[in-house]
Amino acid sequence: MAKTKKIAVIGFGNIGTGVVRLLYEKGIAGLELVKVVDVDIKTKRPVDLPASYLSTDWRLVVADPNIDIIVELIGGIEPAKSILSEALKQGKDVVTANKKLLAKEGESIFQLVSTLHRRIGFRASFVGGHSLIHELGLAGTAAKKFRRIYAILNGTSNYILSTMSREGQSFEAALKEAQAKGYAESDPSDDIDGKDTENKIRILLALISNSYRSAGHFPVEGIRDITQQDIQYADELGYSVKLVGVIEPKEGVFDVAVHPALVPKMSLLGSLPGAYNGTELEDEYGTVSGLVAPGAGAYPTADAVVKDLLDIAEGRTLPIPNSAAPITLGATEAVSRRYYLRFSVSDEAGVLARITDIFWKYNISIAAVIQKEAVSEEFVPVVITTHLAKEGDLQAAIDKVDKLEVVKARTRIIRLLSADT
Amino acid sequence: MAKTKKIAVIGFGNIGTGVVRLLYEKGIAGLELVKVVDVDIKTKRPVDLPASYLSTDWRLVVADPNIDIIVELIGGIEPAKSILSEALKQGKDVVTANKKLLAKEGESIFQLVSTLHRRIGFRASFVGGHSLIHELGLAGTAAKKFRRIYAILNGTSNYILSTMSREGQSFEAALKEAQAKGYAESDPSDDIDGKDTENKIRILLALISNSYRSAGHFPVEGIRDITQQDIQYADELGYSVKLVGVIEPKEGVFDVAVHPALVPKMSLLGSLPGAYNGTELEDEYGTVSGLVAPGAGAYPTADAVVKDLLDIAEGRTLPIPNSAAPITLGATEAVSRRYYLRFSVSDEAGVLARITDIFWKYNISIAAVIQKEAVSEEFVPVVITTHLAKEGDLQAAIDKVDKLEVVKARTRIIRLLSADT
Repeated sequence: MAKTKKIAVIGFGNIGTGVVRLLYEKGIAGLELVKVVDVDIKTKRPVDLPASYLSTDWRLVVADPNIDIIVELIGGIEPAKSILSEALKQGKDVVTANKKLLAKEGESIFQLVSTLHRRIGFRASFVGGHSLIHELGLAGTAAKKFRRIYAILNGTSNYILSTMSREGQSFEAALKEAQAKGYAESDPSDDIDGKDTENKIRILLALISNSYRSAGHFPVEGIRDITQQDIQYADELGYSVKLVGVIEPKEGVFDVAVHPALVPKMSLLGSLPGAYNGTELEDEYGTVSGLVAPGAGAYPTADAVVKDLLDIAEGRTLPIPNSAAPITLGATEAVSRRYYLRFSVSDEAGVLARITDIFWKYNISIAAVIQKEAVSEEFVPVVITTHLAKEGDLQAAIDKVDKLEVVKARTRIIRLLSADT
Repeated sequence: MAKTKKIAVIGFGNIGTGVVRLLYEKGIAGLELVKVVDVDIKTKRPVDLPASYLSTDWRLVVADPNIDIIVELIGGIEPAKSILSEALKQGKDVVTANKKLLAKEGESIFQLVSTLHRRIGFRASFVGGHSLIHELGLAGTAAKKFRRIYAILNGTSNYILSTMSREGQSFEAALKEAQAKGYAESDPSDDIDGKDTENKIRILLALISNSYRSAGHFPVEGIRDITQQDIQYADELGYSVKLVGVIEPKEGVFDVAVHPALVPKMSLLGSLPGAYNGTELEDEYGTVSGLVAPGAGAYPTADAVVKDLLDIAEGRTLPIPNSAAPITLGATEAVSRRYYLRFSVSDEAGVLARITDIFWKYNISIAAVIQKEAVSEEFVPVVITTHLAKEGDLQAAIDKVDKLEVVKARTRIIRLLSADT
């Protein structure tokens, strides 16, 4: 048995409290909590920690030679970045839950870990996917390759979309419900605009490519424009609408994007309930596997922190990207996808023919159509799903379609992720 | 980097061929294939291995001091047990895909590993759940506790049930289709009678309890009696019918069983397609997580073998049960479950009242009822789902109900696994 590691937790919020409960109240062999740092050490927390453990000065704690591992749980860029950098320079190992920091400043943090031969655990930056991050990160060893990763990585968005689907609510009503229940922040933009998913996808990309170099820009689209109408049509066609992060490596180039997508209802992603996260992977031999886990919450996050601490204490391998090789992203226009398209057309003969005529010119073939009899609206919806089509062709075709006089509003485009048949 | 490990594979069937392809054709750093043993080394395999690698004498290979790790892939009890025991005694580490051997003779194998301080990798005995086995096995370190594990661990049964549900086929027709497509053996009894699931549940139980002591008897029921009618009623009620292995630890006692069960359609287990395996875990804090992976196939199994080989070569921790403490199983009658019940009753007034009267006496309360107008049958089906009820009470009540004159056939009882409301 290795000697007990002395641990300081910096950040005494919900997650910090969760970690303190596990380390101090429950007690875990090999891990000893010695300090907890926060700017506010007056507020009463739901854990009975003696005052002697508390400090407001992270610099003092990070400089303490008795402490082996620093756990950073304050979030944001600064002082989180300085805390981690300073701790690494002091010869300490670190654990962090800070996905924003790793997505934006991963380059400098991982480089420091690499050059100083220290260790960093960041499962908690990824909560719902931490087994995945671990497996993928270690996979470098086995040179395991993936064809695709489709992942739902934002619990708030999934809660909203699941509620819209289950209860027939509008986006706005479902967002309000999510806020009332504590699943969404008062400013929910990071979650519903796809930025949180983007951060997690960037960390995942670093692990898969084994490079901490910043990957540049890829398309990120959120769920604000998803309507109840689209959710109902998707349901009728056998799909759920989900916010999905996509990574597809192709001959050294990565197709990467974050966007809402139709996924088969009866699939791991399509049936993912509430605030859960889920991931589907297809490896180079076509084997698909997946995992589901809570996407947030103080306890699951604290549990992920403790898993990292145990890996460090017990000398197990921790995955980190450790080269600075550039990551090449594919051109969006060249990616082949299936699409769900909702056209708003005037109720007259020959409209569908005019659309399919344009599709034919752009090599887009149709998989399914829903056109219902008009009731009383001034325009009627026509819903089409396509077979695989190049994103560039699709966009060009829709530009043409949207200029037709019979088309009364911008066509709604949602990607459709499923095996083409 | 540790020195390259020299590996012998014993058993050159489908999985053996898969492992040889990965180690010899693809090549994996740190792992060197040096021998392949089979009783038949004449038959041509789809891999171009020089004759100098081949041997028919496992004793010679196991005794070879140059070989570090023996991979056993022949299945069955003997000579697999002798191969593993001999290899361990010769100071070698071992990897096996043999779930039957570990379920039935795990006590002697694990004890040998423990006393000789050797290592054993057995992810491949578990294919679809190997990440799970790994996490659960290592969890001993963190003293992590689980409230429940619900797992679909047999690909053949899941393929048959999914086909029955999707295509409206009878059990017999779906079994024939599974056999034609290679998902079921000509003698499918191990798979469809729940024995294969039982073997995997026994291995899982050993890991969770950290004891290799044989756990004694628990109820095992297969899927031969599942009818299209029950699948349709389940569907109407929002459930899929699946073959599920259940482990629920309660204060040192384990409730363990294998049986068909209704699980919510829109859940990880309920939406599990084809020959996949899936697992749902709820930990002591109520956090639910899950994973999905192919349940069989040469490549996924070979991949699991290679994962174990890499863990051994790179010095990572491998989970094994390492005490001989007795495992206490709970009394079946005392377990509380929800139930799906299909009664076959004569079409006359007051039948439902007579059933509910008996239920009332046994503290069984009703969650849902489906009774449709009789068409032309001599008896009509009445379907009831219950809230939580003790298995002993339920059985006693059904015994009473089945003696009523208005009840025309034995009541069909299927357990229902879902949060009670």
